[in-house]
Amino acid sequence: MEKSKEYECTSKVPLPQNKPFITCLKSNIKETFFPDDPFRRLKNQPFARKLWLALQYFIPIFDWLPRYTLEFFKADLISGITIASLAVPQGISYANLASLPPIIGLYSSFVPPMIYAMMGSSRDVAIGTVAVVSLLYSNILGKEVSPIDNPTEYLHLAFTATFFAGAIQASLGFFRLGFLVDLLSHATIVGFMGGVATTVCLQQLKSFVGVKQKGHNSDVISVLHALLSQVHKWKWESAVLGFSFLFYMLLTKYYAKRKPAFFWISAMAPLVSVILGSVLVYLTHAEKHGVEVIGSLKKGLNPLSINKLAFKSPHVMAALKTGAISAIISLAEGVAVGRSFALFKNYHIDGNKEMLAFGLMNIVGSCTSCYHTSGIFSRSAVNFNAGCKTAMSNIVMSIAVMITLLLLIPLFRYTPLVVLAAIIFYAMLGLIKYEEVYHLWKVDKFDFVICISSFVGVVFGSVDDGLVIAVSLSVLKLLLVVARPKTFILGNLPNTVSYRNIEQYGSAKRVPGILILQIEGPINFACTNYLRERIRRWVFEEEDRIQSSANLEPMLQHVILDMGAVGSIDTSGIGMLQEVRKFIQLRDLKLVLANPGNEVIKKMYLSKTIEDFGEESMYPTVADAVRHCTQKLQINKPPSVQADAEVNQI
Amino acid sequence: MEKSKEYECTSKVPLPQNKPFITCLKSNIKETFFPDDPFRRLKNQPFARKLWLALQYFIPIFDWLPRYTLEFFKADLISGITIASLAVPQGISYANLASLPPIIGLYSSFVPPMIYAMMGSSRDVAIGTVAVVSLLYSNILGKEVSPIDNPTEYLHLAFTATFFAGAIQASLGFFRLGFLVDLLSHATIVGFMGGVATTVCLQQLKSFVGVKQKGHNSDVISVLHALLSQVHKWKWESAVLGFSFLFYMLLTKYYAKRKPAFFWISAMAPLVSVILGSVLVYLTHAEKHGVEVIGSLKKGLNPLSINKLAFKSPHVMAALKTGAISAIISLAEGVAVGRSFALFKNYHIDGNKEMLAFGLMNIVGSCTSCYHTSGIFSRSAVNFNAGCKTAMSNIVMSIAVMITLLLLIPLFRYTPLVVLAAIIFYAMLGLIKYEEVYHLWKVDKFDFVICISSFVGVVFGSVDDGLVIAVSLSVLKLLLVVARPKTFILGNLPNTVSYRNIEQYGSAKRVPGILILQIEGPINFACTNYLRERIRRWVFEEEDRIQSSANLEPMLQHVILDMGAVGSIDTSGIGMLQEVRKFIQLRDLKLVLANPGNEVIKKMYLSKTIEDFGEESMYPTVADAVRHCTQKLQINKPPSVQADAEVNQI
Repeated sequence: MEKSKEYECTSKVPLPQNKPFITCLKSNIKETFFPDDPFRRLKNQPFARKLWLALQYFIPIFDWLPRYTLEFFKADLISGITIASLAVPQGISYANLASLPPIIGLYSSFVPPMIYAMMGSSRDVAIGTVAVVSLLYSNILGKEVSPIDNPTEYLHLAFTATFFAGAIQASLGFFRLGFLVDLLSHATIVGFMGGVATTVCLQQLKSFVGVKQKGHNSDVISVLHALLSQVHKWKWESAVLGFSFLFYMLLTKYYAKRKPAFFWISAMAPLVSVILGSVLVYLTHAEKHGVEVIGSLKKGLNPLSINKLAFKSPHVMAALKTGAISAIISLAEGVAVGRSFALFKNYHIDGNKEMLAFGLMNIVGSCTSCYHTSGIFSRSAVNFNAGCKTAMSNIVMSIAVMITLLLLIPLFRYTPLVVLAAIIFYAMLGLIKYEEVYHLWKVDKFDFVICISSFVGVVFGSVDDGLVIAVSLSVLKLLLVVARPKTFILGNLPNTVSYRNIEQYGSAKRVPGILILQIEGPINFACTNYLRERIRRWVFEEEDRIQSSANLEPMLQHVILDMGAVGSIDTSGIGMLQEVRKFIQLRDLKLVLANPGNEVIKKMYLSKTIEDFGEESMYPTVADAVRHCTQKLQINKPPSVQADAEVNQI
Repeated sequence: MEKSKEYECTSKVPLPQNKPFITCLKSNIKETFFPDDPFRRLKNQPFARKLWLALQYFIPIFDWLPRYTLEFFKADLISGITIASLAVPQGISYANLASLPPIIGLYSSFVPPMIYAMMGSSRDVAIGTVAVVSLLYSNILGKEVSPIDNPTEYLHLAFTATFFAGAIQASLGFFRLGFLVDLLSHATIVGFMGGVATTVCLQQLKSFVGVKQKGHNSDVISVLHALLSQVHKWKWESAVLGFSFLFYMLLTKYYAKRKPAFFWISAMAPLVSVILGSVLVYLTHAEKHGVEVIGSLKKGLNPLSINKLAFKSPHVMAALKTGAISAIISLAEGVAVGRSFALFKNYHIDGNKEMLAFGLMNIVGSCTSCYHTSGIFSRSAVNFNAGCKTAMSNIVMSIAVMITLLLLIPLFRYTPLVVLAAIIFYAMLGLIKYEEVYHLWKVDKFDFVICISSFVGVVFGSVDDGLVIAVSLSVLKLLLVVARPKTFILGNLPNTVSYRNIEQYGSAKRVPGILILQIEGPINFACTNYLRERIRRWVFEEEDRIQSSANLEPMLQHVILDMGAVGSIDTSGIGMLQEVRKFIQLRDLKLVLANPGNEVIKKMYLSKTIEDFGEESMYPTVADAVRHCTQKLQINKPPSVQADAEVNQI
């Protein structure tokens, strides 16, 4: 008797301290929006230092430039030139994909990388135009305004969409709403990118054989139909040219994977293809025999385009939609790219700040004749492999593009479009990730379904169909996780005071007369009905099991709910606990809570539920609860001796 | 050394058994859609018995009717007549509110209760037309087709909406998608109902003073404007009449709460008001002096309306919208009413089956000139207090309404509309639940915000505005719960092997050199970025704390993640664990997992992550993990003696 008294004194569940509302609110806001505590470095510093650190935080170039060395510059110069050799042909190609003039692609590889080099915190990300976003532009914006009939209006709307995208990205970053981007899961992105890559590859096939398609449907069926219905119009010269270059680039990639020495050859392959293709056309005058070429481009740097932002256009909503979707997509990809390289090199990237950097980059871009840019995985990987040290490599690339714009532009006059198509095709093949899809299938079937729906939506519907389907499925998955928290029976691990899931631990033994249930996950209105039904069923099933069991177990007398995993609870959850208590009481059983967390206790206290439960229905551990219940166990049926011994041993 | 060996043998985290995919899928589907295992009773029964039990399950009247006694019938007769006395005046009133002919309200109190009495599993729910749904009809449908200019088309669309509502309810029940209804949290319902009640009360004020309003705006501003701008047109006789009856009903309610003997007077008050009002008008010929009356109604039972369902109407989408919204609202309320009385009398209600019953009731209703019906809280409470035993009371009510339809209809000719308005006003006051709003504020501030937004949306916007706002906020809340699982530091409870949140348990002590973190809640793509940042910050903060602490604690060397509360994990979550492991390794620390659940282990195994972690990074309990880490602790700084002793004590 005395032992039990002492025990009750040492291990009560403490009542929560009553913190003032404003303190709770503050800490909640901090946990929700500033989980990484970005200004930790600023604490306890003098004011001038604070200011300087804050400046370094917002404009990281002030952080690394003072420590910049010649060694670094050598490395950055090489990697910068390497990515420039990708940026020029890809810039022209992707602008083509976005139905924009080729020069816009080059403009977009000049200003935005400069801005990012100052604002961004990644040392490895290479900035440039993105295939996915380019396709989004021609798909969504092109449906509203034809880039062929109204090229100027289309161009202005593209700048406007870029402005919107930048504004959205910057505000997501500034208001630290990065978690909205997290709603695009990795599975969604893999499926979406794969779908886009497939679509784009098919479109490039059209370019290879020189087939034109009416309308803007990018789904497989329409494109295949256009391709196959015009077999008689196929241009075989062009196709042979395209496939040769594609084959050449794939070959260099294959060897680069085998032997690292081939890396540079692979990295330069697109530029080499452009040069070879241009020389070939120039020598054979193929442009007069049906091979389309880029044609003459205007020399000079980006003209200002701030006066071209068409906020008053009747199609401004389409621009907003294009901007919003591309903002989110390019953030989800761009920030992830930066993060993965940062993890590799052991430095840190603040997702929300990266969003701010991307946003400002696109806002400035939209005012200087650029369209949407972001961090690109393939180009960043080349940057990384070429040995870049800081964001200076982006500045080098930017200057290389500037020189191209000022001096080398006329050289692209004879570049055949089919080489650009081959470059896009080559880049797209890298976006179809079979192994990742297989990994998803193996590890999580639901993620696999999300990935495949996203893919199918893009390929057979449209880009936005795929996205809507995948995001809805993702949110549904989250809601299902909240609506169906797991519950299971705990048993005692022999010779310990630990209680574990009896399905997982074969050695865990049920405690006679007591049903111990663990609830895994937060309790809220979406799951209260489920939990009430499920707990009810556990109780019935346990009673049935005891009745039908051969050895004479004692009747069920106590139900212990292990609340240790219930991180949060709301008013509906508290109501549910009350209902479960009533139901259990009406069956002449007793409900005991083990290890209720801070929030559970607090809400039970505030709602006065705690008075109904009584202090002796709450214990800090399952073992304490079991000890209490065992003391009160009425032996109406002879318990099996072994089980009893086990309990007393604790 | 030997002891440690033995210990490792006894307590390994078991690898999951590799269940076939189809078994997992089956058990997942059962947990998601059949958590209550509704066909449990049918197991191990002969076929004929199975059939009979299934019939009883789907049509519960077969269950209770064979056991029905005269005693029961006496009780049900009294309660049935009591609720009929409410059903007749409320039926007429609510039809008025829905801009439908008064007779439709009576029709709707005849057929649907009959259907429910057979199909429903609640013994206490009283079926009838609902104020909220009536308002929804006149608000949403009335915007599309004017009930004044096109009464026939409006009526047919109302039947169609009812059909849609029934079909939606029945399919939600049949496909066991009841959890979609759970997305309307109690807080939403309280706010929404309060808002609707306020709106309806204001509209009744217009009826009291005989003011007409143009358009269908039901928001406070429009209605107040209509009221105040027409002060000169107010009809004072009518207003006095209305307020007197309202006062009379409120008075009876007040006394009924004080003295149970007054219950019958209160229950009969609406009918008494109707009779008194009619007699008064008949005697004073007030209908000729500006007091509006119902006028003559057609005798006879419900005509068939199956041929009036207007699926081909151009306004069918409005009917679908009305149907869908009212289906969900009336389910959320109706099923909750049934559940709360069932809990009180200790029987059980299957939510999904109730939905099926409500759905069939409305489908049949829509074919027999009824509009939307559901279970009503206020009338069910009267039914309960009047001593009902089974759903027979609904049949009695139904027959009473039938007699009214066949014989007593002419008596309503002189019933003044203002009495109906008073009856609605009276019923609505019961829907504004101050105490519950206060309870929400006290227990959960977010729930309070949801409730108030829902209220404000309805009162200042429209019924659907309020609903959209509240549901979006509710879903946002759920997403926030998933996106921000709680994490906290665990400490050792003195003299035990238990580890608890050090913020909650003041006596819990940190283990020197080891940071023990618990993650509370499922890990998935929405929270991986957050968790990675948060764990990073915990590590930094712990290192800072150790560095700045006065006593010479050993440096941080191990991080233990208590995964006991992680019920589920997806591929992104597995990726996050890998990243955390890398980050921790790069800081020369070691990551150990404690108590990983079945699903965590399984997915780590499938993704081969488990090979990177190694078997010695996983322990079934935090105590085991601590023991392992303590053995490996390098004493590079002299640890405080007391802390060390404590750890060894385990």
